[in-house]
Amino acid sequence: MDLKQACENLYKLQAKLSAYNHAMSLIYYDGVTSAPKATAANRGQTLSVLSEEQYILSTGKETVELLEFLDAHKSELSEKDARTVGLAIKDIREMQKIPMDEYVAYQQLLVEADDVWHTAKETDDFDLFCPILEKIFETEKRFASYCAPEKHPYDYCLDKYENGLTMEKCDEFFSALKSRLVPLIKKISEKEQLSDKCLWNDFDEIAQEKFSLELMKIMGIDLSHCGLATTEHPFTISLGSHHDVRITTNFNRQNFVSSMFSVIHEGGHALYDMGSADDLAYTILDGGVSMGIHESQSRFYENLLGRSREFVSFIFPKICECFPEQMKDYTAEDVYRAVNLVTPSLIRTEADEVTYCLHVMVRYELEKRVMSGELAVKDLPSEWNRLYLEYLGVEVPNNKQGVLQDSHWSGGSVGYFPSYALGSAYGAQILRKMKQTIDVDDCMKNGNFAPINEWNRENIWKYGRLMEPNDLLDKVLGEPFDPFVYTDYLEKKYGELYGI
Amino acid sequence: MDLKQACENLYKLQAKLSAYNHAMSLIYYDGVTSAPKATAANRGQTLSVLSEEQYILSTGKETVELLEFLDAHKSELSEKDARTVGLAIKDIREMQKIPMDEYVAYQQLLVEADDVWHTAKETDDFDLFCPILEKIFETEKRFASYCAPEKHPYDYCLDKYENGLTMEKCDEFFSALKSRLVPLIKKISEKEQLSDKCLWNDFDEIAQEKFSLELMKIMGIDLSHCGLATTEHPFTISLGSHHDVRITTNFNRQNFVSSMFSVIHEGGHALYDMGSADDLAYTILDGGVSMGIHESQSRFYENLLGRSREFVSFIFPKICECFPEQMKDYTAEDVYRAVNLVTPSLIRTEADEVTYCLHVMVRYELEKRVMSGELAVKDLPSEWNRLYLEYLGVEVPNNKQGVLQDSHWSGGSVGYFPSYALGSAYGAQILRKMKQTIDVDDCMKNGNFAPINEWNRENIWKYGRLMEPNDLLDKVLGEPFDPFVYTDYLEKKYGELYGI
Repeated sequence: MDLKQACENLYKLQAKLSAYNHAMSLIYYDGVTSAPKATAANRGQTLSVLSEEQYILSTGKETVELLEFLDAHKSELSEKDARTVGLAIKDIREMQKIPMDEYVAYQQLLVEADDVWHTAKETDDFDLFCPILEKIFETEKRFASYCAPEKHPYDYCLDKYENGLTMEKCDEFFSALKSRLVPLIKKISEKEQLSDKCLWNDFDEIAQEKFSLELMKIMGIDLSHCGLATTEHPFTISLGSHHDVRITTNFNRQNFVSSMFSVIHEGGHALYDMGSADDLAYTILDGGVSMGIHESQSRFYENLLGRSREFVSFIFPKICECFPEQMKDYTAEDVYRAVNLVTPSLIRTEADEVTYCLHVMVRYELEKRVMSGELAVKDLPSEWNRLYLEYLGVEVPNNKQGVLQDSHWSGGSVGYFPSYALGSAYGAQILRKMKQTIDVDDCMKNGNFAPINEWNRENIWKYGRLMEPNDLLDKVLGEPFDPFVYTDYLEKKYGELYGI
Repeated sequence: MDLKQACENLYKLQAKLSAYNHAMSLIYYDGVTSAPKATAANRGQTLSVLSEEQYILSTGKETVELLEFLDAHKSELSEKDARTVGLAIKDIREMQKIPMDEYVAYQQLLVEADDVWHTAKETDDFDLFCPILEKIFETEKRFASYCAPEKHPYDYCLDKYENGLTMEKCDEFFSALKSRLVPLIKKISEKEQLSDKCLWNDFDEIAQEKFSLELMKIMGIDLSHCGLATTEHPFTISLGSHHDVRITTNFNRQNFVSSMFSVIHEGGHALYDMGSADDLAYTILDGGVSMGIHESQSRFYENLLGRSREFVSFIFPKICECFPEQMKDYTAEDVYRAVNLVTPSLIRTEADEVTYCLHVMVRYELEKRVMSGELAVKDLPSEWNRLYLEYLGVEVPNNKQGVLQDSHWSGGSVGYFPSYALGSAYGAQILRKMKQTIDVDDCMKNGNFAPINEWNRENIWKYGRLMEPNDLLDKVLGEPFDPFVYTDYLEKKYGELYGI
């Protein structure tokens, strides 16, 4: 085999794997957006076949030989080729440790789990979800023991979403956050509360959808390559490559900002995915490098930009155009204050910036204990409720608004949640850096996302997975990551808002 | 290899092929229902990979050996296993004759063609579509020369959609129809015309969608296994098996029956697909046996039932519920007469029962001549317009309402159209047979589809592809197919309506 031919074969293999990913992602997307209710088993049947084919393709003799040959010639490869080989080898070495039948069975289990979770959430029935969730945690533990027997199983999970992340680092990070957030929340609670009255009314879903599309355009999202759909839980997905991305939202008739900030959040993910350099398409390098960096983008757009006074003043007239009756007694400042009301609450995706990370910490705590074998899945609801009371001071009235609220566990994403908090903190430091060269406030006053998107594209997006997340972050920031940049940002913004 | 093991392997292979079909069909469906505009190339990339994998799986050494082994032991197989082997061998023998790169390139071409056709239709630009349509006809001719060099290429195409159909049979069939339809149309044109005024107004799309779902329920379609979406051209598709079927429609704001009859038509297809016996799922035997039989079901529901006085009288109050303002001056009889107005027109899918087959004949004539090399693709618009004037007496004002109206050619379905006319005629004879045991008129008066669906299920649907279409038809009818049963039906119904 000569090296040139081997490289060609490598990209053929990558294109094949991208096609399987496209098919499997689309089957998932279809399942949650438009498939008829009783078709999950049918999707499971197909996914079991496709995931088996994908497994064989990824770990087959020919593939392994090809990658090992290329790995042996790594020094002669371009940076891109070498990185592709490195990531592909890492993936297959891991996949090979999981027996194929278990790998396939897990894919099928997750289709069923998604279906069961939807029903369980709808009917507020944790008992229905519990047996399948037990299987998911068991499988995650078992796979961790196959792939990284030397590690704590939860460290293995964390590392999947943010390369290098461990419980030790999380504990340190969360304790830094806590040391500043808890006093801040206390101070805020002693002040006069803001009102979010202007957000609550009756908001027609069709008008909300129109507004969502308008928002996406304002953010600079190319709608000819990015679609919008409605699902129970908002998410972003790439189909085959960064040339076809879909975001989803969920319209709350009583409160239009629920969907507005979902769209901006998922729009941030979409911009990141769509910003990969074109020559990365159909390779393992296409898309975001880690979930932490991904959330640094989504939460950057959602909060650092979306909840800024400048952006709210820009978007307010457009809100009024969509909802003239509902908005007629309010000002941009009313909306700005309303979307920044700090109040301990039940739902993570709708939480304010200050209390948000506490929601993440509850989940982190629970996952860690389940993965350590200290907590049984059946006891998750009571522990969830206990921690919400302890961390946030709120009584959880039902599992629908409690332990069943997120789709992550039913999707097998154990270890994902810390990315949200990490990403939020990364984002604050990225913003500080960006402000050295861009007048972000002025851009937001004019709804001008172009310079900001360009900065992110040049510094982050275009690299796809070419760098390790930590290396990328170091390069972007030009200094070590410092969680207190985030808490400083929160203290300043909310200090001003609450007169602290 | 022992026989039991071989049969197991056969059904594993079938399940794999069903999974590829699921993925590829869903990618097509996504493309026409919800994908962002500029994503066709991305889908083409994935489809080229999947169709190559499907080709390799279908024609690979292991598959061929398996099927040949089973074929050699055919006499020891159950009827179902033997039929599965027979159909699978027929398929792969044909596929093997087409070089893989050409097969894959054609799948990719069709993705592009669908995209180009949508734009061409939207902008009324045949020149845009012409080069790709030329490639499609060329490929169809080339594939015909590979697969059935002994046949006229158009006979090869016809046979794909209705096993055993030839130009000779079509000519005979169409000439029988013409001998009775042309005089009937002439007589009708000399009578006082019916009015369809009640159908034209402003009909909100959301109300139309609600009405569509209501119609599907009334027809006995299980909505937990059958979805509804909107597309430029209505169609029905099964995803992986008959457990997940989708129909599509297109809402015309000015005329609600356009979508109403599309839904009933596609609903007929869906009922047929969904009616396969459960043990046929994930095999080549699942779904309809031929497009002629398929159209016998769709046009049966659309016309023989849907445009009957009895059904219209049943559905009228529900129409009034959805559109109370628009319907307030009209009666059920007004609607019945309106939906049976006979008038030569431009659009096939909206044509009345009497002139419908003339629309089909135009397409048949053109396809036959292009496939024979007598007509160039670039001359299709002028010939289309000439034949519409000759057969239907209408001037075609633009290509959008002319040669660009149907999605069949862009989808590579050359030879499909005659199925519509054949199916209509099969349907009339099936109805006559059904009426020997079921009081169909009484069922329709009460919107009671259950006994009719049950009859179709027992006699047609449950067999899937277990029988050849001609054998199935003979068994259902218990007598030879006779196109004059259809023309008798039309003469009786329209004779009464027009006082002939």
